[in-house]
Amino acid sequence: MKVADRHYHTIWLNNDRRSVDIIDQRWLPHEFKVVTLKTVDDIAIAIRDMWVRGAPLIGVTAAYGVAIAMADDPSDAALHDVWDKLHETRPTAINLRWALDTMRQYLLPLPQKDRMAAAYRRAADIAEEDVQLNRQIGLHGLEIIRDIAARKKPGEPVNILTHCNAGWLATVDYGTATAPIYVAAEEGINVHVYVDETRPRNQGAQLTAWELNGHGVPHTLIVDNAGGHLMQHGQVDMVIVGTDRTTANGDVCNKIGTYLKALAAKDNNVPFYVALPSPTIDWTVHDGISEIPIEERAGAEVSHVQGLAADGKIASVQISPTGSPTANPAFDVTPARLITGLITERGVAQASAEGLSALFPQSRR
Amino acid sequence: MKVADRHYHTIWLNNDRRSVDIIDQRWLPHEFKVVTLKTVDDIAIAIRDMWVRGAPLIGVTAAYGVAIAMADDPSDAALHDVWDKLHETRPTAINLRWALDTMRQYLLPLPQKDRMAAAYRRAADIAEEDVQLNRQIGLHGLEIIRDIAARKKPGEPVNILTHCNAGWLATVDYGTATAPIYVAAEEGINVHVYVDETRPRNQGAQLTAWELNGHGVPHTLIVDNAGGHLMQHGQVDMVIVGTDRTTANGDVCNKIGTYLKALAAKDNNVPFYVALPSPTIDWTVHDGISEIPIEERAGAEVSHVQGLAADGKIASVQISPTGSPTANPAFDVTPARLITGLITERGVAQASAEGLSALFPQSRR
Repeated sequence: MKVADRHYHTIWLNNDRRSVDIIDQRWLPHEFKVVTLKTVDDIAIAIRDMWVRGAPLIGVTAAYGVAIAMADDPSDAALHDVWDKLHETRPTAINLRWALDTMRQYLLPLPQKDRMAAAYRRAADIAEEDVQLNRQIGLHGLEIIRDIAARKKPGEPVNILTHCNAGWLATVDYGTATAPIYVAAEEGINVHVYVDETRPRNQGAQLTAWELNGHGVPHTLIVDNAGGHLMQHGQVDMVIVGTDRTTANGDVCNKIGTYLKALAAKDNNVPFYVALPSPTIDWTVHDGISEIPIEERAGAEVSHVQGLAADGKIASVQISPTGSPTANPAFDVTPARLITGLITERGVAQASAEGLSALFPQSRR
Repeated sequence: MKVADRHYHTIWLNNDRRSVDIIDQRWLPHEFKVVTLKTVDDIAIAIRDMWVRGAPLIGVTAAYGVAIAMADDPSDAALHDVWDKLHETRPTAINLRWALDTMRQYLLPLPQKDRMAAAYRRAADIAEEDVQLNRQIGLHGLEIIRDIAARKKPGEPVNILTHCNAGWLATVDYGTATAPIYVAAEEGINVHVYVDETRPRNQGAQLTAWELNGHGVPHTLIVDNAGGHLMQHGQVDMVIVGTDRTTANGDVCNKIGTYLKALAAKDNNVPFYVALPSPTIDWTVHDGISEIPIEERAGAEVSHVQGLAADGKIASVQISPTGSPTANPAFDVTPARLITGLITERGVAQASAEGLSALFPQSRR
């Protein structure tokens, strides 16, 4: 999407046709930096230290890492080495492993002389597939937004609340939860987005607000506490969030606090949608609350907040008393009963085992 | 309650029997400062610039301000002047006006020579009445906590979640929502408190966690997003919050985000209590959501966060992109249907017109 009136992806092949350029997301929203990754080490650092984040983008970055490795040395040994080296950067990232497996399986049968060119082609394809997947989500979500817009008075925006960053910065372009918003904006629909700041890491304030600001989508930043009040007063027409993992029966595991917004939406008859590419569906899990282990992250994310200090440097301040313990569950589970629909690349599914298996019959277990 | 093993009130008469000492709350939780207020100007600054905050404490501070004025000049003119001067420091604070009216009505009929001594006595009485009111709330809340404790396995704490700061720092001692917790701790009941940080101003992280830490009550600081997840997993036995205004039918207007916790409590069968001194009941309002205007506060509270910087100074950092608009509603309304009970100084009332008027029959309109 657009940054300062120019269209960007989060990752692209550099003009030298060997290295790749990325948006270094560590400095957002305060600084927009593009950096060039030239070696497998550069790629590994960028993934491990979260210069890039978001499952789809991590996968694409790793795929380009394999291509860079093949440019240096197209041997089987080098292919296995780059798999190992990149896999260990974020070992629990499911898309990272998927991208590395896909690249290795594709390249191993090829003659070594063809591997480099094939690797760059395949990495570019994975990137383009991600864009198309998200665009399909956007087109299906557009229908929902269009219906709401049709019921609005002239000049009234469709007010959409979102939580965390399931935006284009987590993918190659469009994002997942943001795809319907960007597509609706492209279509000239008057949309306005309430952005939850999303403590503890503030991805809403730091990334989603920055994205929308850059692309020129009207939006308002709010604290995570405010959404219920806005819904009580008719100021939210729909909620769209992303998901880290979706169960076979339609429960959604997403950033901590998503469940609270789903409860408020239900209590106020506000439609609550989850946007997801089908690979995030885990067909082996049926009860999200009892079966999905929730990652407990560092307490410093709760006790400290990072931002731009008065001297123009990025700094961290401690908000809590020294000595007060913290707990920091990173995700929560929103039960399917609170979800109006799941917006996938194939269409909108009811959040239920029946709804999901009707859209994805071959995946049914 | 205790700070570093010594029992404090938030305000007390200095040894000179003329000036008053307060805890200057602007530096908490990072610095504990006691300052002496010697003049009416000192009192006015302390209220206006929020060295003291919380409705009951503001009232008591103003009452002592009237006493200091009488020490200087016990004339009628001085009495009217101090009323005007202190009232304008925070003109919407209902307890401030109540305390000033009470003092003036009490002192005006007295001979000037008796006014100074009478004023200090009356101010001390107002402070003591606040302590007793909160202690009564604590004793009634204790019964609820004791019942939950009786159903716990040996060694298991009663887990209580609270939002914002309705603690002793907002009153003279005990607090409102915290009173049952402190009284239960006095009684030797094993309690543990989940403290919502309470964005945007972080009163939970900065004040409630500091209070509990100082008094030695086990607690855990969490982000506002985390409470729903904890309730889903049986980690919260009850919620107790305070209230800024309670309607005649039991709706509760409290810090933004309270409503979301009440929804989560309802969805998980966790009892949700509101602790309140009866003066916060507004018998003229019946529908909290449609009738109570919600204060919209400065956007800088959303875009910026204050805390302790690495250099040991208190600093503010900007978390959002420059140019992203913000909205900052300060309170929300929790409908009576989500509230298990209202803990008042007279006992626990059902959150309904019938429940409240049964406990406070003379207040019925």
